[in-house]
Amino acid sequence: MMREMEVRTSKREEMVDVTRAVEEVVSSSGVKEGVCYIYVPHTTAGVFINEHADPSVARDIRETLARLVPSGAGYRHLEGNADAHIKATLVGTSQAVLVRGGRLLLGTWQGIFFAEFDGPRRRKVLIKVLEG
Amino acid sequence: MMREMEVRTSKREEMVDVTRAVEEVVSSSGVKEGVCYIYVPHTTAGVFINEHADPSVARDIRETLARLVPSGAGYRHLEGNADAHIKATLVGTSQAVLVRGGRLLLGTWQGIFFAEFDGPRRRKVLIKVLEG
Amino acid sequence: MMREMEVRTSKREEMVDVTRAVEEVVSSSGVKEGVCYIYVPHTTAGVFINEHADPSVARDIRETLARLVPSGAGYRHLEGNADAHIKATLVGTSQAVLVRGGRLLLGTWQGIFFAEFDGPRRRKVLIKVLEG
Repeated sequence: MMREMEVRTSKREEMVDVTRAVEEVVSSSGVKEGVCYIYVPHTTAGVFINEHADPSVARDIRETLARLVPSGAGYRHLEGNADAHIKATLVGTSQAVLVRGGRLLLGTWQGIFFAEFDGPRRRKVLIKVLEG
Repeated sequence: MMREMEVRTSKREEMVDVTRAVEEVVSSSGVKEGVCYIYVPHTTAGVFINEHADPSVARDIRETLARLVPSGAGYRHLEGNADAHIKATLVGTSQAVLVRGGRLLLGTWQGIFFAEFDGPRRRKVLIKVLEG
Repeated sequence: MMREMEVRTSKREEMVDVTRAVEEVVSSSGVKEGVCYIYVPHTTAGVFINEHADPSVARDIRETLARLVPSGAGYRHLEGNADAHIKATLVGTSQAVLVRGGRLLLGTWQGIFFAEFDGPRRRKVLIKVLEG
């Protein structure tokens, strides 16, 4: 069971909370016990899991990555988005979350964020729920 | 087959070797071939796999993260632990290890570390062994 | 179904494109739908997924990691490769890619890179294809 989801971003860098959308895919999959994969098939965007109660956490993550990997800092890749490729690599291309009782087993404060580093764009996220 | 494990940390930042505990969960699961997931349901702690023969490696990892993401460096999140959220995001929320012959297929020098970035606390780690 | 693959590196730091080799393992596994794990059983090497059309992207990733985690910067681990352990932790020990129609579901620009941080060496990569 695999589902493709669209995410539209409106800025160059943006952390989009996709928790509810992923939860709906898990529900509709009918899988009660297993593992849910969230996979980003792009090279200038990623996915991470962290606090979504206070939106300033995602902002701190974005700003710290921008400090560590500044844009336009003499990279070899000439498309002007080398920093986005590097940030995506640091954050990661996929996440796995356990599924129990037909629901994502996220911690109390955890949410799933699509991490846009080279928007605005129309992006895809692949979600697969493996039973077991 | 899912198991919840408790980890108690005693400092603000601490890398706890949980390899043996995870290995025991795999043994008791009865699964011979598959994949073991180690999932941290927290937003200021993570999990990584690296050398556990020499404890100075985990210390170097901790100190380098502290240098790259210093605590109290003007973050927006006002609970004083923004650095912990960012470090957890860089290190990651989960790890997957292959299982063969009923054992974790770790490399000779590899161990599994629970990474505490905002302790001391009583933490949970979820472990799932998927057969296949 | 698990397969072990050898990767030979020729420099201290080198990003080796292993996409085709992983694709061949998936093909020969006969699995049509599932998840493919790429696991590195080493502590000074990792694996990541990013652009492989322009080789300068992997170079930018390597050079940025070298800037953030310089070698020989007063680490406690005395084997001279502490930076390699830290880089491997940041990049990650494993990756998961979805499988559909017997093929890796990589994005258009995505490739799988073995990340050598302490070569030249003869390395192993474990590949497992889980059906489901």
